[in-house]
Formats: sequence, C-alpha cells, structure tokens
Amino acid sequence: MGDSRRGRSVLGRALAVLGSFSDERPEQTLGEIAAATGLASATTHRLVAELVEWGVLERPARGRYRIGIRLWQLGSLAPVARDLRDSALPALQDLAAVTGQVVHLVVLDDHEALFVERLAGHTDVPVRSRVGRRLPLHASGPGKVLLAHAPAEFVDEFLARKLPRTAAGTITDPGRLRRALADIRSTGYCLSRDEMTDGASSVAAPIVGPSGEVVASLSVVVPSSTENLQLLVPAVRVTAAAVTRALGPRSPLGGKRR
Amino acid sequence: MGDSRRGRSVLGRALAVLGSFSDERPEQTLGEIAAATGLASATTHRLVAELVEWGVLERPARGRYRIGIRLWQLGSLAPVARDLRDSALPALQDLAAVTGQVVHLVVLDDHEALFVERLAGHTDVPVRSRVGRRLPLHASGPGKVLLAHAPAEFVDEFLARKLPRTAAGTITDPGRLRRALADIRSTGYCLSRDEMTDGASSVAAPIVGPSGEVVASLSVVVPSSTENLQLLVPAVRVTAAAVTRALGPRSPLGGKRR
Repeated sequence: MGDSRRGRSVLGRALAVLGSFSDERPEQTLGEIAAATGLASATTHRLVAELVEWGVLERPARGRYRIGIRLWQLGSLAPVARDLRDSALPALQDLAAVTGQVVHLVVLDDHEALFVERLAGHTDVPVRSRVGRRLPLHASGPGKVLLAHAPAEFVDEFLARKLPRTAAGTITDPGRLRRALADIRSTGYCLSRDEMTDGASSVAAPIVGPSGEVVASLSVVVPSSTENLQLLVPAVRVTAAAVTRALGPRSPLGGKRR
Repeated sequence: MGDSRRGRSVLGRALAVLGSFSDERPEQTLGEIAAATGLASATTHRLVAELVEWGVLERPARGRYRIGIRLWQLGSLAPVARDLRDSALPALQDLAAVTGQVVHLVVLDDHEALFVERLAGHTDVPVRSRVGRRLPLHASGPGKVLLAHAPAEFVDEFLARKLPRTAAGTITDPGRLRRALADIRSTGYCLSRDEMTDGASSVAAPIVGPSGEVVASLSVVVPSSTENLQLLVPAVRVTAAAVTRALGPRSPLGGKRR
C-alpha cells in the first residue's frame, strides 16, 4: 500500500533525525541535522518541529536542538536501565566507595562495548567512558571480558576485522587477543594497562544472568601508576558476584528461562 | 499539504505508541498498545514492527514489547543526564556512602517531580522512586523544594488544584503547604515525614544553576523511625552546594547566560 510505504518512510526519517544526535554531537542546528541525515531542509524543519512539540527534542537556544527530557524518560524504561542497572547499582556504589575509583557497567551492543553506568571516583584518571557511549570491544577490560564470553563465531568474525589502536597498550594482534580472551575465561577476570587510554588501567570481571550466560561486565579504573592491579581483583570479583546474585537465581539447567 | 498532514500523523502515532509504555507498563502486548493508543490493530502492528527494526522497541518474547536499548542510548544524550546527572553524581555518591541511605536527584517536569537519579542505600526504606518516574510535587521533600522556588503564578495554579494524599503525612491543605514552602525558602532546606510513603522521611535541599535559579533538588531518605532528621541537614546542604558548584559559576548579574 502506498500509505504504508509513505508511513514507514516518515517514521524512518524521524528516527534518522534522532539518530543524528550522538555523544560527539549532542546539540545540533537544523542545517547540521539535514546534512547528517541527507534530508531536505523543509522535511528536516517539519520533523524537528513535531519532535519538539512532543518533548522528544528540545530547543535550548534559537536554531539549536538537543535530545529532550521526554526521550530520556522513555529510555529509562529500557531493561538495560530498569533491570540491569538498578540491580547492579548497590554493589557498584560499594565498589566505588571502597576503592574511590571510577566504576563501569558495560554490555555488548553489536560489535561494541556500551557503557550502561559509570560511577565517579575520587582520583583523577583519564577515562573516555560516559553513560550511553560505545567503545571498541578489544580495547577495554570490560569489553574484553564480554568478547571472551561471546560465541566462538562472533569472536572469529571480530578477530578477522582490524583491531584499531586507541592507546599504547591496546592489543592489536588477533593471536595475542585470542590468548588474552582464553586467559580471561580461565582466570575469571581481566587486567588491562593503557589499552583504552594512556594512563588508565583496569580490573574487570563478568556478570552472569539467570540464563547462565554472561550478560554484562564491570570494571574499576585506576591510574596506570598503580603497581599491583592484582590487589583489586578480589573486590571486583566479589562485586561481580553480588550483581550476578542480584540478577536472580540461575536456572538449574543453565538454559534460558524463556 | 496532504503529505505533510499525513506525515505529521504517522510520527504522532509512533510517538503515541512509545508514550503508551510507562513505569507501570514497561512491557506490553500489541493488543495493550492498541488499546492504550486507540490505534487500529494493523496500524499498531506496522508501527511496532518498524520501531523494533530500529531497536527503539525490543521483543523479549513472542508478542511482547518493551523499550529498546537504542532509545535508552539516545535518551542518555539529554541534558538532564549528560549535564545535570553527570555533574551531580560524585557529590550524590559521597552523600550515599556517608549516610548509607537512598539519595535522590529531582527536577520539575510539568507539574510533577521527575526523579533523575536514585542511588541505593544500605537501609531498607520504603521508597516509591525510580529513575524516570514522576511523583506528585507536594508529596515529597525534593518536590516541595522545587515548588518553593517555582514562580508565584505556578504555585498559585498548583495550590488551586486538588492535593491528593499519598501517605499519612501528606500536606493536603493549600494554606499549610504555602506556609511549608515559605519555611523552605527561609531555612534553605526541607524536612518531610511520611509524606510520600508511610515509613519514609527525607531531608531535601535546592540545587542552583548558573542562571541563579533553582534547577533541581536532592534528598536523602531515611526510615521514619529516625528521631532527629535535623542531624542530616548539614550533609544534605553541603551536597547541594557541591552540586551547585559543579554546575558552573553563577552569572554575576544573576541573569540567564543565554
């Protein structure tokens, strides 16, 4: 039906408008939105006006737009926020309070690590993370933990791609990364030095869901001047176990509950 | 133009589909979505399918839908998350760690209090809050703080409405609420006992933005068995001052920066 096709494309265009906002471009002009989406000026103008009307976009200043509070509120209903984040928070807060360091909660999203939570530390460590930001899987502790527990075909496909360097310690060699992933599986944790950002190191561990599968990972980030990362391992593993427990009892057969 | 009218209405319908999800109904069937939006089955089906395709909705089980990770990620770009929440978090974490109690960060949203952050406590206090949830302004400490600093016309209009009771201590008399608001303005903080939920009490204080206006409030929630709420006032006010400072320098003329 013509109506269906037209409807689909209006919604698609509106979602493209929303998708043009990102961590790097949280605020845009109409011209920037039009350029990013390839939409005509008039179409962009009309869609943006309607999105503002619904509170999905906000206009902080004349001609400038950003994601609005209504979209944030809707997003807070997603399971990643309602279930995972809420369940994990008490244990993450304890880890942040005891260590005084930045704490991350991360999930796999396509082929990247998506940062679901980031608690603040008392030390000034250079970190690139931000809630909602996605970072390369191979270049961070929690990312490598997720990769270590991903299906074999996923890992093979991932290792066949280029592994870009983001800092001095980034593992860019597929063979070395494969051995690092095996280490993570056998030890149950992951130490990283200067892999995502020079000057930042981390200790990460997996979080297991009721299905028996790794559903997330967490990490504590410390300055790379920290000599013995190993000292943080018990606290990180205990926290991961606490979150695993908070997510609910594991199915006795190890299968999915649904 | 017909095209414009039809386009507007497709987007409006899609936003109505998203708006049918709420804290009370985070997961819905197609039938529930159709009933909540008043849309025809076929239209609902088509819109939901497209929203799933874009990751805006997810299908956790056959015929059941919920808000997807892509919408959560977009929402995390809203200023309320990126600016306010990120700036406030270190101080909120300190308050939660020192008191061991639930800590809230709240903003005014239409005529309600919108909970932007909620850190966990070590005590089991009955609280209705959840990130993204809205609660009545007059029935919570942080809500009353926001109301106390709202424009006079807003307060008059608010007090002319019915003030529903949510717990034994809820202030439902407009005159008494008006006096409570004056107290909050003169003392700089707010004590509440059993106003939102029986068994929960709170101490709240305002957060001031660079414009010199109150942009948010924070509170710490304690069991109502706590005898002297006053003991928590300095910690709450110091935290509110820390967040105020983190939001940036106040304009010397007290006017808006934009």
